[in-house]
Amino acid sequence: MTRAAILLAAGLGTRMRSTLPKAMHPIAGRPMLRHLIAACEGVFDRIVVVTGPDMPALERAAAPHATVIQHDRLGTGHAALQAAPLLEGLEGDVAVLYADNPLITAATLSRLLEAREAADLALLAMRPADPARYGRVLPHEDGGISRIVEWKDANENERAVGLCNVGVICAPGARLFAWLRALTNNNASGEYYLTDTVAAARAQGFRAVAVEAAEAECRGINSRIELAAAEAAVQAGLREAAMAGGATLIRPDSVTLSFDTRLGQDVTVGPDVVFAPGVTVEDEVEIRAFSHLEGCTVRRGATVGPFARLRPGTEVGPRAHVGNFVELKATLLGEGAKANHLSYIGDAAIGPGTNIGAGTITCNYDGFAKHRTTVGQGVFIGSNATLVAPLTLGDGAFVAAGSTITATVAPDAMAFGRARQEQKEGRAATFRSERRSSPAKKEQP
Amino acid sequence: MTRAAILLAAGLGTRMRSTLPKAMHPIAGRPMLRHLIAACEGVFDRIVVVTGPDMPALERAAAPHATVIQHDRLGTGHAALQAAPLLEGLEGDVAVLYADNPLITAATLSRLLEAREAADLALLAMRPADPARYGRVLPHEDGGISRIVEWKDANENERAVGLCNVGVICAPGARLFAWLRALTNNNASGEYYLTDTVAAARAQGFRAVAVEAAEAECRGINSRIELAAAEAAVQAGLREAAMAGGATLIRPDSVTLSFDTRLGQDVTVGPDVVFAPGVTVEDEVEIRAFSHLEGCTVRRGATVGPFARLRPGTEVGPRAHVGNFVELKATLLGEGAKANHLSYIGDAAIGPGTNIGAGTITCNYDGFAKHRTTVGQGVFIGSNATLVAPLTLGDGAFVAAGSTITATVAPDAMAFGRARQEQKEGRAATFRSERRSSPAKKEQP
Amino acid sequence: MTRAAILLAAGLGTRMRSTLPKAMHPIAGRPMLRHLIAACEGVFDRIVVVTGPDMPALERAAAPHATVIQHDRLGTGHAALQAAPLLEGLEGDVAVLYADNPLITAATLSRLLEAREAADLALLAMRPADPARYGRVLPHEDGGISRIVEWKDANENERAVGLCNVGVICAPGARLFAWLRALTNNNASGEYYLTDTVAAARAQGFRAVAVEAAEAECRGINSRIELAAAEAAVQAGLREAAMAGGATLIRPDSVTLSFDTRLGQDVTVGPDVVFAPGVTVEDEVEIRAFSHLEGCTVRRGATVGPFARLRPGTEVGPRAHVGNFVELKATLLGEGAKANHLSYIGDAAIGPGTNIGAGTITCNYDGFAKHRTTVGQGVFIGSNATLVAPLTLGDGAFVAAGSTITATVAPDAMAFGRARQEQKEGRAATFRSERRSSPAKKEQP
Repeated sequence: MTRAAILLAAGLGTRMRSTLPKAMHPIAGRPMLRHLIAACEGVFDRIVVVTGPDMPALERAAAPHATVIQHDRLGTGHAALQAAPLLEGLEGDVAVLYADNPLITAATLSRLLEAREAADLALLAMRPADPARYGRVLPHEDGGISRIVEWKDANENERAVGLCNVGVICAPGARLFAWLRALTNNNASGEYYLTDTVAAARAQGFRAVAVEAAEAECRGINSRIELAAAEAAVQAGLREAAMAGGATLIRPDSVTLSFDTRLGQDVTVGPDVVFAPGVTVEDEVEIRAFSHLEGCTVRRGATVGPFARLRPGTEVGPRAHVGNFVELKATLLGEGAKANHLSYIGDAAIGPGTNIGAGTITCNYDGFAKHRTTVGQGVFIGSNATLVAPLTLGDGAFVAAGSTITATVAPDAMAFGRARQEQKEGRAATFRSERRSSPAKKEQP
Repeated sequence: MTRAAILLAAGLGTRMRSTLPKAMHPIAGRPMLRHLIAACEGVFDRIVVVTGPDMPALERAAAPHATVIQHDRLGTGHAALQAAPLLEGLEGDVAVLYADNPLITAATLSRLLEAREAADLALLAMRPADPARYGRVLPHEDGGISRIVEWKDANENERAVGLCNVGVICAPGARLFAWLRALTNNNASGEYYLTDTVAAARAQGFRAVAVEAAEAECRGINSRIELAAAEAAVQAGLREAAMAGGATLIRPDSVTLSFDTRLGQDVTVGPDVVFAPGVTVEDEVEIRAFSHLEGCTVRRGATVGPFARLRPGTEVGPRAHVGNFVELKATLLGEGAKANHLSYIGDAAIGPGTNIGAGTITCNYDGFAKHRTTVGQGVFIGSNATLVAPLTLGDGAFVAAGSTITATVAPDAMAFGRARQEQKEGRAATFRSERRSSPAKKEQP
Repeated sequence: MTRAAILLAAGLGTRMRSTLPKAMHPIAGRPMLRHLIAACEGVFDRIVVVTGPDMPALERAAAPHATVIQHDRLGTGHAALQAAPLLEGLEGDVAVLYADNPLITAATLSRLLEAREAADLALLAMRPADPARYGRVLPHEDGGISRIVEWKDANENERAVGLCNVGVICAPGARLFAWLRALTNNNASGEYYLTDTVAAARAQGFRAVAVEAAEAECRGINSRIELAAAEAAVQAGLREAAMAGGATLIRPDSVTLSFDTRLGQDVTVGPDVVFAPGVTVEDEVEIRAFSHLEGCTVRRGATVGPFARLRPGTEVGPRAHVGNFVELKATLLGEGAKANHLSYIGDAAIGPGTNIGAGTITCNYDGFAKHRTTVGQGVFIGSNATLVAPLTLGDGAFVAAGSTITATVAPDAMAFGRARQEQKEGRAATFRSERRSSPAKKEQP
């Protein structure tokens, strides 16, 4: 028995007003489609994604799962049917889900499959606080459901029903595809509706049941305002989980997390911190205000920020310090090393205990390729140093403040690359009096 | 027929605890008075602003509209009457509004004027969720209103009325001024009340009607707490409009917009971004977290931030990149050009495709005047470069990292302005042992 | 008569999932215990803190107040009794409070003491919106209270009581300790409960009364989620007080304050600003967005930010300017002086009217000790200057852009420390063509 899920992701998202396919809009740093795939991967054996034409980004996001293209937009029933060639002959259940309903959990999907065991078709439903114009799920005398009535077609009694249609359906594959093929489009929109399979099943004497899910999971996303609301709901859950796990978020509402952010115990996160995808923070780390982390690891006991930027490929070593207006990119900062002020360190390995002075810049790019900087342990790099890569500084080396360093520095050597200071007595006073009399004219002092 | 609005803006705002006139406190980057003027300009032909003595900033904010000074603070009726000399003889309606009620919309003002057509006096009213201690607007048997009763003077029945006085009034100018002149100040405060004109009109057999507006529009601002609440309401509206227009605001509540912020379609705005006044962002731009923009234009496909500061007079070209800890001021960054790390670029024009290295500084100020930097296309500026303006770098020029450049660089030339590196073998080890034995003493290495 | 408070702070806070003692977790920049001590210091003559074993940080936080260690965790009654040796013989009232109930105000504690005067024992109670599983405080026919019943032991009638136990108790010291010594641990947890003293007092014919406090004050903190909720409540109060005092917080919810932040009148605080402890801001200062201040004073009329970092020991003088990506540490910035762009100034005194160019760095650390930089008045420091401390720049001195300065500059002198510019015609074009043909190879240009 193989369980398969068909994910309908062909929507253009007209109401999003976007050139990006709707399913590609991200929540907590991950496209909607990937949220739904992640929930499905724990429950289904096969996943097929139905995309629209010319959506290569969506096909990439679906990988390694198969995709089929719905060339004509003839409705959800038609969309689901596009997956039939890939799933025909499959023995087992097939569920149909929507990429713009991306917050459904694996637990709910498991309940849907269980409910299907006890009936012929299972439908996901919810009881929203405000049922508004949702389609209503009408009860059947056998305790299951009889059919779905759209709000605009419903009479008063039907509108009084609180159970609303989410649209997700599960049935044995062979039957489901048969029902889908038999659908008609005799309705106002001229579309083939997936949910008409409920009535089709009942008409053939099969039993259909509803599985209720929390409204929050069933949130549909059709506009950027709904997208922002979904983001807020997901963020709230991520923050609560982080706090329950032993991290302090001083002002949780000001912290942006990603779906995969990992925060250790006794981590403190200050106000206004952004965790883009791919961040792991070990125990006892302090991430101070106004920090932006992405694709990096921060080791135990380190301190980051305020105003720090950690870019992909960075590892901040145990008890290391990254301070304000410092950017690390693809850099390993060794244990106890410090880069505390106004620096850009890219494509570098910095040894343990090394101190990087304020204003230090690694020149890792020459306009054509990136080059590496390797700094040993216990090195002292003076302020405003310019380190032209490829470059190696040996253990215990010392770079004088203000130096431009272009060649290897030997261990324990002191390197200078700066001009000697000269002074012109009284010249500043002269300069000022000249400039005062002729401020527009400019002369190099 | 000329329609005129008198805007009462003389309030000191004692409860604001401010030396700034109340009407000058900003909401969404614009003084309250300017919000009200903007709403009035679409509806009224003439606008007169009543200020208090010694409020030159307020007079400037009122321009080009006329101002009159209310020298004695004798009440709202007295304040409105100060505008009479400028409007006397005007044939048409005159409305009186309050600068601390700045969120009234042009649509509501149009409805007020229409209602006046069908009666002799029209009053703006609202039905707040909590009527609290607002004055109540009492009904008249002719379907209009009879008078306004202050909460403290109202009996139980009158307090049960849900319709509350906003205070804005509209009537034909000649009659309005006559009523205002006939007001008395026989009340607890000893002030002449504008809203007493309703009773005056009725006493002369004229008909008065109320126009209801949403409570949100009628918000009065008398303290900084109320100011913050108004700011929050206006921000919520601006954010919703931006999202409806096709911009994604990942965490809308963390984004600060201005009254005139323009965001294109498929713009993505990260968390914690501030748009000060005067910002236009074209389609498909990404503004990343912790960015601060003011008086600038960002062209299609550009990327800004995180931690970017765009100051007035800046234009970021199509597909250009502005990265972290970078400040652009009065600068044109050409198409596809990049300034990605820790730079200050001021009073400059940077050519297309040029790359500005980390730590680059334009020295545009000599203590007396600002000077320009002109950089050609396809230029490569090495890291930690110091560019002393006035300065021109030709197309295809290359500035070596760590250089100070004070003179023109020819096209395709390579410019150096840095010292040659020297190394003292073992000197770092000696220095450390000396310093360890005598840490307090300091010797230049 | 001496009034004493016993603060129970031995809790490990298992639900916090922390190695830090629960009472050390901070709210608004101050450990919970210090909040409670601050409230007590205005009301009680003596304070004794009961800690657990191995909590040296907590003992330091309790100073100068006495601490005793509860070695075995046998319940709140047992914990309170540990303070008996220090308070035995004291004539007067003793109150017992909890460090994880840190938001109780001095006013409430005064009411508790007053209530004790009129009875033999006073207990703090509240009427929460949702009484949930709190212990209920049962009434006595004399108008006081009879006993406390835990929720799980309460019958329907008792659960209907809205008055809930907070746990704080006050009684004459001699009696309180006698009751505590007589407690038994015949209950499900096998612990000695402080609140059993109410029943003990009644059994001996004494009278017990309840004092009601607002639920917000009685908030208990047992998890990081509750900690964040308490932080939010305290922040809301601090923000409201700041606005009432005459500061504008443009988006109050985005501003993080500390328990001791002082903001003057007509201070404007932009969005996303963090005030760590120890900050005083005088009147008419503007703190712009994305600024982080700690342990510093900002004098009247100064402007700070956006993206400014002020660290402990800093004083920003009247009308001085600190701009973006600037860090000041232990620095006095003189009246009207400016440090507007990308600078690190540490351990420095900067004279009035001095201008610090973009990219200026003070090199205050040599790997062993910190050294001072002294800059006179009216000095002009060119961009990207490197100032190697210890260093003195005389009044009116001028430092050329891009210079490294290691020795004293005389007043009105102009100092240079940079290489002369050289140019290689056409070399950039050659370099590019070489690199294009062999991008992997790197040659120093």
